[in-house]
Amino acid sequence: MNAEIISVGTELLLGHTVNTDTSAVARELSAAGIDLLYSCTVGDNPERLKIALETALSRSDLVVTTGGLGPTGDDLTKETIAAAAGKKLVMDEESLRRIEQYFKGRFLGETQKKQALLPEGCTVFPNDCGTAPGCGFTTENGKCIIMLPGPPFELTPMLQNYAMPYLMSRRNAVIVSHMVHVFGLGEGYVAEQISDLCGRSNPTAATYAKAGEMFVRVTAKAKDKTSAEKMCTPVVEELKKRLGEFIYGVDVGSMEEAVVRELAAQGKTVATAESCTGGLLAKRLTDIPGASDVFHMGCVTYANEIKTLLLGVPEEMLRQHGAVSPQTAEAMACGVRERSGADYGVGITGVAGPGGGTPEKPVGLIYLALCGADGVKVRVMKPAGRYRGRDYLRTLAASNALDMLRRSLQGLGGLERPAYSREKKGG
Amino acid sequence: MNAEIISVGTELLLGHTVNTDTSAVARELSAAGIDLLYSCTVGDNPERLKIALETALSRSDLVVTTGGLGPTGDDLTKETIAAAAGKKLVMDEESLRRIEQYFKGRFLGETQKKQALLPEGCTVFPNDCGTAPGCGFTTENGKCIIMLPGPPFELTPMLQNYAMPYLMSRRNAVIVSHMVHVFGLGEGYVAEQISDLCGRSNPTAATYAKAGEMFVRVTAKAKDKTSAEKMCTPVVEELKKRLGEFIYGVDVGSMEEAVVRELAAQGKTVATAESCTGGLLAKRLTDIPGASDVFHMGCVTYANEIKTLLLGVPEEMLRQHGAVSPQTAEAMACGVRERSGADYGVGITGVAGPGGGTPEKPVGLIYLALCGADGVKVRVMKPAGRYRGRDYLRTLAASNALDMLRRSLQGLGGLERPAYSREKKGG
Repeated sequence: MNAEIISVGTELLLGHTVNTDTSAVARELSAAGIDLLYSCTVGDNPERLKIALETALSRSDLVVTTGGLGPTGDDLTKETIAAAAGKKLVMDEESLRRIEQYFKGRFLGETQKKQALLPEGCTVFPNDCGTAPGCGFTTENGKCIIMLPGPPFELTPMLQNYAMPYLMSRRNAVIVSHMVHVFGLGEGYVAEQISDLCGRSNPTAATYAKAGEMFVRVTAKAKDKTSAEKMCTPVVEELKKRLGEFIYGVDVGSMEEAVVRELAAQGKTVATAESCTGGLLAKRLTDIPGASDVFHMGCVTYANEIKTLLLGVPEEMLRQHGAVSPQTAEAMACGVRERSGADYGVGITGVAGPGGGTPEKPVGLIYLALCGADGVKVRVMKPAGRYRGRDYLRTLAASNALDMLRRSLQGLGGLERPAYSREKKGG
Repeated sequence: MNAEIISVGTELLLGHTVNTDTSAVARELSAAGIDLLYSCTVGDNPERLKIALETALSRSDLVVTTGGLGPTGDDLTKETIAAAAGKKLVMDEESLRRIEQYFKGRFLGETQKKQALLPEGCTVFPNDCGTAPGCGFTTENGKCIIMLPGPPFELTPMLQNYAMPYLMSRRNAVIVSHMVHVFGLGEGYVAEQISDLCGRSNPTAATYAKAGEMFVRVTAKAKDKTSAEKMCTPVVEELKKRLGEFIYGVDVGSMEEAVVRELAAQGKTVATAESCTGGLLAKRLTDIPGASDVFHMGCVTYANEIKTLLLGVPEEMLRQHGAVSPQTAEAMACGVRERSGADYGVGITGVAGPGGGTPEKPVGLIYLALCGADGVKVRVMKPAGRYRGRDYLRTLAASNALDMLRRSLQGLGGLERPAYSREKKGG
């Protein structure tokens, strides 16, 4: 089955909104084994939307539109698509009731009500996070059209809870997909290690890389869920065997989520002391709802005096080794662990750039320390290749800290000692 | 002049990479007064790229491609575009030299060298952050084609430093654009206030909204830069008059950048104490290179004991009013100011959700306090409309804290007192 996404919204063509809807829809289609051949974006312009729709219908079995379902005058997706598909718009009473409910006690204008107008005979997708419902229907040539709202926090739940089930119910096959999350190995290396698994057509295995992490998605198509799961299992197991301790989770949302869950499962806590990452690690840990059970205290000690004041890093050590040193990272980690009473303390200090580098302490040199009941480990990140920017380095540093924590929680060692001893020689 | 963007990359159609290149290019084109009518994405597939190019050339004067210039086998943009445009690929010696320089001391394969092959007679855009150069050229029908690399940290500088100047030099007009940044007013309200200014064709004024902030972009087209600037000035001045203290900057990168610059200009410092934002405010401040001059200390006090330990928030106060209260926010702000010796202390405490809400302390209730030499101000965010998610609330809270700081630095008052007194009555 071939699909095409049409995103509608002038704001997308002005560049002031990044189109995350397309990737959200693309992820779901791809996991469902539906081939997305094109995606395109048009402004709030009926003529151009009509052209985009006709082009899409001429080459795809499924067309998904995002945006333009709202109450304002330039929200014209439904009107345009319905007209092009030769469908009448009729008032959907249930949607109208939900909109009235949403505006209970507030003024409800006609433009708001118009959101409940939907193509005759369509399947309605309720909007659990807003007002504009979505829908799916089949054209007389048997093509499927799905319309979803633009705001990501409305689109994502509607997509997962209504649109994809609608789509799958129309097909005979069931798709099951599992994502294996890897940190600490390059995509090229992993692709080599698993090339035989990636070659197959069903189940499939495919690699992706993102901000220093990488993923292997395993997808199987079968007549029912159980059979599809049965086909995925051996591949996932084989991946675990080959990539071993570099896998931080299967079907987890993020490294921070994996770490927060593991800390909670073990009833352990972590405290953070950050210099160059400036709170990013704490921010990522607290992105996870329920982080308060495992994270009680974080310090952003940007200045040397504050490292001493909050974490007890000896002034003498800062003078002798400098703020960017394995010794300081270690003292920060142990200091915050002691002050907080947490099971683990993390310390991060380095040069994120673009400025502030020296020949001995170049931009990109970052030390990470993890202090736990079983002692301290220090990992060093050294400048490699081109400078990818402050954000990239800070993200990679926070991810390395999460990886050290995850490895320690799982009783794994390995990546730290060499980095540290190499550094020891240097110092 | 009409333009179309073609993004090339299977990873985009699999949904594992969000297409930020398109918005980066769209922003620049829009600021240059070039109308972007369509953007589309195709995989690493020569046939479909050829179709997309032909469609784009049939309706646009300018086509910008992103991605597919790299060394790997599926990087086929240059080959495909050149063939479709009837151009030979020739080795660009200067690009080859740069690539050899880049790989100095490392193995340089043929696939890497192939990146220096460019359409005959094109204008080369050097890649200052990577290996693959970009280029621009004119087809025999007078259409302009620009090719840029996919990695955002390579694309953005090439776009701004080489591609846009190349584009403007081909045109008789010069475009000048200024962005007025607003916080604390809704887009609808602002649009009403400035509808007369938005109606004009040259200079133009247009509004955009993003994560609780909004922007008005003023753009003028003229024969030279000075004349275009002269046309923008009165509009920008009029906006300042109408939106006044709600404008936090003109042509600034972000609220955090505006605040860090203002703190630096006044030689002042800030320290942060965060609960529900969990380090996001500190992270945003330290996103700005040079933040270390104005930000020395941040605390993430997620647990009550830690609020007491690090910030001296009285246990009695936490018992009486709870962690989520204007009193606690105030105590956090004053505590961190005192501990750090900073000129300003910021305290943030609230319920970001999705869980943890109660009837008295619902999800979305967040207190922000700013403690300075001139006393303390507290702002309250109350749940409004639908729950937009944890990220949105945390971002909005951090932005409100930055706004309070900015207003205090500029000697403005206004938004805090009512919110606080309203709360006082409540408590």
